[in-house]
Amino acid sequence: MKALTEEQIVDKLKDFQGWDYHENSLHTALEFENFKDAFTVMTRIAFEAEKLNHHPDWSNVYNTLEIYLSTHDAGGVTEKDFELAAIIDQLVN
Amino acid sequence: MKALTEEQIVDKLKDFQGWDYHENSLHTALEFENFKDAFTVMTRIAFEAEKLNHHPDWSNVYNTLEIYLSTHDAGGVTEKDFELAAIIDQLVN
Repeated sequence: MKALTEEQIVDKLKDFQGWDYHENSLHTALEFENFKDAFTVMTRIAFEAEKLNHHPDWSNVYNTLEIYLSTHDAGGVTEKDFELAAIIDQLVN
Repeated sequence: MKALTEEQIVDKLKDFQGWDYHENSLHTALEFENFKDAFTVMTRIAFEAEKLNHHPDWSNVYNTLEIYLSTHDAGGVTEKDFELAAIIDQLVN
């Protein structure tokens, strides 16, 4: 899978809300009611990521969740990252 | 709950393996076989943290898990952080 160009990424991001292109990754920051809600969403994302065999770089502090998506093998953002971003959006919204 | 002094923290850390005092927190970095194993341990930690009402600042990249424990309200490391660190050690080892 080939890394997308910055132009392609910025163009595709127009279809996404709350995501930006940051540190060579697709990036979003989410906020929940509390830790339990944040971790519940993380768990649902974890199952989808495992199924897709494509995993997020993410960090959680209490009710906040920060996610970076990139394809390490390709050295950048690929279609697979957009695929996972779309799945995350479906789970969150 | 009062923040411990650096001297107290360093002294108490002698009873812990794989933890250090970093960025005003108790810090450890763990590595697992794969994502599923890492997230499984995260889930077990999440339940204990919720029960303790004391939550880690943590980040996960595939099979790795980095954990920072501090008590935000106290502005540093407290007994509660050592309590959670001990629980995490029990779950991991």
